[in-house]
Amino acid sequence: MSEPLVLTLSCADRPGITARVSSFLFERGGNILEAQQFNDRTSDAFFMRVEFDPGEVSREAIRSDFVALAEEYGMDWKLALRDRPRRVLIMVSKFDHCLADLLYRWRIGEMPMEPVAILSNHPREAIEHTHLGDIPFHHLPITRETKSEQEAQVRELAERYDAELVVLARYMQILSDEQAAHFAGRCINIHHSFLPGFKGAKPYHQAYERGVKMIGASAHYVTTDLDEGPIIHQAAEPISHADTPDELVRKGREIESRVLAEAVRLHLEERVLLNGQRTVVFRS
Amino acid sequence: MSEPLVLTLSCADRPGITARVSSFLFERGGNILEAQQFNDRTSDAFFMRVEFDPGEVSREAIRSDFVALAEEYGMDWKLALRDRPRRVLIMVSKFDHCLADLLYRWRIGEMPMEPVAILSNHPREAIEHTHLGDIPFHHLPITRETKSEQEAQVRELAERYDAELVVLARYMQILSDEQAAHFAGRCINIHHSFLPGFKGAKPYHQAYERGVKMIGASAHYVTTDLDEGPIIHQAAEPISHADTPDELVRKGREIESRVLAEAVRLHLEERVLLNGQRTVVFRS
Amino acid sequence: MSEPLVLTLSCADRPGITARVSSFLFERGGNILEAQQFNDRTSDAFFMRVEFDPGEVSREAIRSDFVALAEEYGMDWKLALRDRPRRVLIMVSKFDHCLADLLYRWRIGEMPMEPVAILSNHPREAIEHTHLGDIPFHHLPITRETKSEQEAQVRELAERYDAELVVLARYMQILSDEQAAHFAGRCINIHHSFLPGFKGAKPYHQAYERGVKMIGASAHYVTTDLDEGPIIHQAAEPISHADTPDELVRKGREIESRVLAEAVRLHLEERVLLNGQRTVVFRS
Amino acid sequence: MSEPLVLTLSCADRPGITARVSSFLFERGGNILEAQQFNDRTSDAFFMRVEFDPGEVSREAIRSDFVALAEEYGMDWKLALRDRPRRVLIMVSKFDHCLADLLYRWRIGEMPMEPVAILSNHPREAIEHTHLGDIPFHHLPITRETKSEQEAQVRELAERYDAELVVLARYMQILSDEQAAHFAGRCINIHHSFLPGFKGAKPYHQAYERGVKMIGASAHYVTTDLDEGPIIHQAAEPISHADTPDELVRKGREIESRVLAEAVRLHLEERVLLNGQRTVVFRS
Repeated sequence: MSEPLVLTLSCADRPGITARVSSFLFERGGNILEAQQFNDRTSDAFFMRVEFDPGEVSREAIRSDFVALAEEYGMDWKLALRDRPRRVLIMVSKFDHCLADLLYRWRIGEMPMEPVAILSNHPREAIEHTHLGDIPFHHLPITRETKSEQEAQVRELAERYDAELVVLARYMQILSDEQAAHFAGRCINIHHSFLPGFKGAKPYHQAYERGVKMIGASAHYVTTDLDEGPIIHQAAEPISHADTPDELVRKGREIESRVLAEAVRLHLEERVLLNGQRTVVFRS
Repeated sequence: MSEPLVLTLSCADRPGITARVSSFLFERGGNILEAQQFNDRTSDAFFMRVEFDPGEVSREAIRSDFVALAEEYGMDWKLALRDRPRRVLIMVSKFDHCLADLLYRWRIGEMPMEPVAILSNHPREAIEHTHLGDIPFHHLPITRETKSEQEAQVRELAERYDAELVVLARYMQILSDEQAAHFAGRCINIHHSFLPGFKGAKPYHQAYERGVKMIGASAHYVTTDLDEGPIIHQAAEPISHADTPDELVRKGREIESRVLAEAVRLHLEERVLLNGQRTVVFRS
Repeated sequence: MSEPLVLTLSCADRPGITARVSSFLFERGGNILEAQQFNDRTSDAFFMRVEFDPGEVSREAIRSDFVALAEEYGMDWKLALRDRPRRVLIMVSKFDHCLADLLYRWRIGEMPMEPVAILSNHPREAIEHTHLGDIPFHHLPITRETKSEQEAQVRELAERYDAELVVLARYMQILSDEQAAHFAGRCINIHHSFLPGFKGAKPYHQAYERGVKMIGASAHYVTTDLDEGPIIHQAAEPISHADTPDELVRKGREIESRVLAEAVRLHLEERVLLNGQRTVVFRS
Repeated sequence: MSEPLVLTLSCADRPGITARVSSFLFERGGNILEAQQFNDRTSDAFFMRVEFDPGEVSREAIRSDFVALAEEYGMDWKLALRDRPRRVLIMVSKFDHCLADLLYRWRIGEMPMEPVAILSNHPREAIEHTHLGDIPFHHLPITRETKSEQEAQVRELAERYDAELVVLARYMQILSDEQAAHFAGRCINIHHSFLPGFKGAKPYHQAYERGVKMIGASAHYVTTDLDEGPIIHQAAEPISHADTPDELVRKGREIESRVLAEAVRLHLEERVLLNGQRTVVFRS
């Protein structure tokens, strides 16, 4: 088997797309390993993800051949190596449970990424409980006055490391609109509430005050609209009246880690496609 | 065994309340069957629920004896027969899944209520799919102009039927502040979203637009603050990008029925105590 | 739009199946509305489900055209009207919560079935709490001596009513091997445990004795191997030490109803394909 | 506030126990912070857990005073410092995800333990992905021939380290009956299935073969009866036909870590009481 590829595409829905795409692959000797499609009848949009073994044909040949088909249908599309670990830049503040969880999953081989660098507005010593190993760490302190400058450094580092994805793993700074726009579609944040409930700061305290009976977490793409970006994954767990805000924080850590890791994995496996303000998520 | 009683109380927390209450019961020959307490360290309030077999002593004797103790501690309290079905008035509009579910549970003996009447702003024929049997049904149409009058009728019927609880089982009318205040603490509504997300109208359409990955339902006491009353129970289920608003409505029906039934059962068993804008829920 | 069709198929996996099938449909003017496929790399089997608008071409034309393609690939396949309610025969004993739930879902239009008859080993009066309406009811009492005869009656009725699916909605009789074989692939049972735990009788009492912390239910195709048939759907909920067997029965009713309804819906929508002792379930 | 204490007790149920125990504490100036009780009406047993601030009285005074009361009721009881981290010995084989999770929770202060030592049948180098820090590590290889001797070493180390709890964090060796008996009530194992389903080896492969639609994990006290000890906590998650055994292993890691951590926390907080082959779990 050659190195498997993954093709993702979206376009206006028209009859025959599946036939055309699957025939395209078959004629070139491709063998489909996994395929999903979604016909959004609300917006008449079409979404597809195909994992395939390209056989004898090179990725470049497939790519250049596919251009004509993609143009015919007006597709947004991407052809990627399925198994190449994606280059990920992780940003974190003081709470490192999501970071620790992502790195552990990476180390045991279940998270298909290469963590190219860790950026924090706190010094390395603040990340006490996570084994960072050889991953480059950059301390980029931030104040109201230096925010613009710090964000420029982040962009510069993301470029230098050729980062494909930026993960805000409980990075407790709000990105400027400029920064959010710069990383649009390639920056995932974990919000520690069940969005759209409890946007903004201290969601567990908000949840306690409101007296809800479940808490949750939401992983979403960052947009200029705070806590409003397309949601990739969410989960929630029951709580009780006896749970203090501190207990909620404890229970929340577990949900946050789990939800962020799942969202990152789905993104890295090219399973998440944007559909306006929503996402299409092709689980296996 | 005599007929079991259930004592619920709340007051400012002070040392010795458990001792005093349990000794009070023991000295009168009471035997505790189930007991829970909650010391709210945030508000320094104390909550207790005790199911007990009163032995030889009458409920009236216990009640009059307890007054002194309750006054000493400044308790809000209630002493009730555990197994007497509570008189419940159910209000419904066109969607009758919650009503059907509540009545089925009642008929097989798992919902400790006596449904004294069903009120609807639609005629009896609109409730097509639920077997109403002999339960009195009142059609109380409502328009903007007649709202005040209709609500007076509801109050009058609640009084006539001596209803202890009013259940809004997908009753699609917003109660006036006056009405909400009148039924404070004895009126449960099911909201078809995971509050505080998607308050107000058409929550499933809101959920679809926002692209959330879970939907839920919330049962809460009705207050003058719309969709802001103390929450009794909530649940949520995963959804996917492929779920249209219609699919969400279908999946939601199941969650709504379940959440409302659980909240009503908890209330009827005297397991829900108010704690400001929150609830204390003593599950067995 | 013509009446949508649903094509389901399975065969040994080979390159090009998706291309061939989707091109087949496209060439005949079919427009795919929803499609899923599964390449089982463990068994090298291929499974596909396609909902499509056939456009101008008749179902019969598509069917006869498809034969050659199906033979070429050695497919098991089925071409059905998507929206035609399937003819369902429901069997029940004394506990009617699953029956009540199925009928309510049918009445409000969310369960795509036509309940052709209800069969019970108890008389109609035993089904106290469910509105049976005009659905034919047959009382088929059973004893050890008459079992064979009663089962013949069931087969005869299933044939007379042209039932496409038999649902054992808490039918508390074990089918003989002969009967199970007769209805293979078209008989769904709800078992009130989280299989393979607690097979056989009184699973909630078994669960209580064992002290598990969750209970569940399993909907599966009936096979000659008791409680071992291919599982379609399962769910489980947390319980506590305070739950008596009676409480487990109460909590279980809800899970059973939900799990059976979901399995039946999935089957009726042609979303369940057999894969040896397992199932492939194509959710939308 | 003095150092809070936690009293746990169980005995045959009799009227007045709550009154006697709470009065006992009140008379000595104790102030209850959290209390739960369970009257098991099946076995007529009584269970209680009380967290309290002892005020001016010493733990030793309370303990010696309580003896008479405990004897009168024939109680099994324990009086412990609530906040003293318990001494925990962790055993592990090659898979270290549960170990990593426990240690991370400990390091951030949410797991009230002191990990006194880690024992493994594999060398330290095999635990590649977990930061062990200064925690003593003992490599105790085991073969069929040396099993008895290795287990003696384990007992000796447990004694030397004064371990209060032994956690089998995916320790892939079956304890001998002797060993299981030795650590009865103070040894928790995580089994990677939803017991009682899939006992024994390779539960995820068993789950795949059987085609279940959910997988789970069970944390239980170790007894001489393999995978039959009293269950403390369980959880389960949905899976699909597309999940290979490898995928189940990945999904299972998360459930295992979570379930074991919760069970260990509950035990360390003295929230788990044995009730024959079952457990009483007093969550806050």
